[in-house]
Amino acid sequence: MKGIKFAMLTTVEEDGSLHSRPMTTQEVEFDGDLWFFTRADAPKVWEAGHHRQVNVSFADPDKSKFISASGTARLVRDRAKMEELWKAPYKIFFPKGLEDPEIALLRVSVEKAEYWDSSPTAIGRAFDFAKAYITKDVSKLGDHAKVEVK
Amino acid sequence: MKGIKFAMLTTVEEDGSLHSRPMTTQEVEFDGDLWFFTRADAPKVWEAGHHRQVNVSFADPDKSKFISASGTARLVRDRAKMEELWKAPYKIFFPKGLEDPEIALLRVSVEKAEYWDSSPTAIGRAFDFAKAYITKDVSKLGDHAKVEVK
Repeated sequence: MKGIKFAMLTTVEEDGSLHSRPMTTQEVEFDGDLWFFTRADAPKVWEAGHHRQVNVSFADPDKSKFISASGTARLVRDRAKMEELWKAPYKIFFPKGLEDPEIALLRVSVEKAEYWDSSPTAIGRAFDFAKAYITKDVSKLGDHAKVEVK
Repeated sequence: MKGIKFAMLTTVEEDGSLHSRPMTTQEVEFDGDLWFFTRADAPKVWEAGHHRQVNVSFADPDKSKFISASGTARLVRDRAKMEELWKAPYKIFFPKGLEDPEIALLRVSVEKAEYWDSSPTAIGRAFDFAKAYITKDVSKLGDHAKVEVK
């Protein structure tokens, strides 16, 4: 299991309720897209659908670090990309590996991202909790700073 | 900061995008509702609105334990409930404590919940990852088992 990290993928279901589930993340440099291995027949793919709005959150509660990434998701059956991203530990979830006819990728194109870091080396730093750290263009909305990736 | 734990609260924004942010959780016995201290003037409250659909996810990535709770959220200004839930460490986020005129509670009435636990004492246990552990009534939907709380 070493090297496998998780994010929570949230989608809106047909009845309007919001649903999340853990997904294994890829340790690749972030270029605006997040990639997840999934089953083409899994409910989560149906929910994510074609360019459907999703949220991907990353949480490290012990260090009080959190990321929220908003964007659209779509199913991609790209064999070359799957070979690029595949790692042996994923066999735990996909025993047949890339030969599994139902294996596919979920590509999340991130449009906004926020980052919280309140790891309190001093109490004062905790006030930063409400602030987002910004890497690109910024549009302020209330207490939160958001990053427009595209 | 000891005793403060976090969950990610996801809401749908006006433009349809999904947005999440960390919230401090309450260490009280779960009776169907989740409670969060918030600011009545914070964007997240506006987003959560009146009986609005939300998702609350709890992640312990180190132990590979995850919870997804779906339900509706609404703002509650209940002084007695706030006094019941208030703890001194929250002063980090609300320096004025319960005297802050903008302090309020967000009450999330949970309708569905799912639980994943893949803490791999043995590799075989990791296959449980795709399965939800059920405490109450069950309605199966694909690979996931869901809990109807109400």
